[in-house]
Amino acid sequence: MRIFSSTTAPNPRRVKIYLAEKGIEIPYVNIDLKEGDNLTEEFRKKNLFGKVPVLELDDGTFISESMAICRYFEMLHPEPSLFGKTPLEVATIEMWNRQVDIYLIVLVGFAFRHTTGYYSDRETVIKAWGEESLKRAITSFGLLERRLADSRFLAGDAFSVADITAFCAVDFAKLVKWKIEDSQPNLLRWYKEVASRPSTQT
Amino acid sequence: MRIFSSTTAPNPRRVKIYLAEKGIEIPYVNIDLKEGDNLTEEFRKKNLFGKVPVLELDDGTFISESMAICRYFEMLHPEPSLFGKTPLEVATIEMWNRQVDIYLIVLVGFAFRHTTGYYSDRETVIKAWGEESLKRAITSFGLLERRLADSRFLAGDAFSVADITAFCAVDFAKLVKWKIEDSQPNLLRWYKEVASRPSTQT
Repeated sequence: MRIFSSTTAPNPRRVKIYLAEKGIEIPYVNIDLKEGDNLTEEFRKKNLFGKVPVLELDDGTFISESMAICRYFEMLHPEPSLFGKTPLEVATIEMWNRQVDIYLIVLVGFAFRHTTGYYSDRETVIKAWGEESLKRAITSFGLLERRLADSRFLAGDAFSVADITAFCAVDFAKLVKWKIEDSQPNLLRWYKEVASRPSTQT
Repeated sequence: MRIFSSTTAPNPRRVKIYLAEKGIEIPYVNIDLKEGDNLTEEFRKKNLFGKVPVLELDDGTFISESMAICRYFEMLHPEPSLFGKTPLEVATIEMWNRQVDIYLIVLVGFAFRHTTGYYSDRETVIKAWGEESLKRAITSFGLLERRLADSRFLAGDAFSVADITAFCAVDFAKLVKWKIEDSQPNLLRWYKEVASRPSTQT
């Protein structure tokens, strides 16, 4: 078993933190995204969409998408639970995880790629969309501040994958020069707590 | 229990098809998105992000995000399984579902909103991004054609939530004047099979 990944990208980091929370060690094969290692026909046999991370199982099966990889391990190692156990826990964690995914990770990704032109050798760059994406991401961070005024972690009292996703989003946003604002004490309190976990020290 | 939703939006349709597959009936409360019913402070108490659908439980708890709502019911009514059972099934369905979500539903959504200006009263519209999003979505549909050349359904031999998401994406794309191309016989074969299921007749 091994994971094809990149040391710099935010989505692979979600898997890395998840595995550290679980105490699972998997060897990594580093992929150079800037060089386009992920866009070759060879890599697309692992993942048609050409994205990292990709988990290769011992029988040669490939699983891509961070949350799919985490769910695979969650089934094999259910403790400590990071996706919830009861129907309400499972639904609440999925809700926050997807909201942070779509309204933060995805938008910060657009902000990064469209304001810096990091991948201008391979994709159309639309600066106005990069700037708009950053504005929308900042609105989403404001909603997290509201949520965290009422809750220790995003999905409730227990740490979950939704916190992993949000933590990676905050760090990713540093690349587009956003950081937690003085008016966001709850987001800061939550960030410091997550940042102090051994799993996030990578 | 009831679902706040809109009859026209693609994400609520995913829940509707899912519930029909399970034979579960839940009353709906229709929300007028064009009028901004979802953007009031009152609605944000149900979902901070102001999106539909939102499931209200009998105790007044709210769950938003289509897949969170579906997972809630999957825990209560595991048969027939639409999220998989073994670790590999669960991971494979999650992989395809998220790929179709991020690289199709989200992109077709941008294409619709930024080329038509449907919500120009409340958001910045960037036409170039709408056109680029459509191009990217079309690339993703091409990848589904490749996948469906090897597989009856997206995640394998069994129908799953990934097929529900993809089916809604194809229908949603009709709004931006895209339809399955003559060069995509596998996508068409799959679409016809999903379209013939009683659950998709809504």
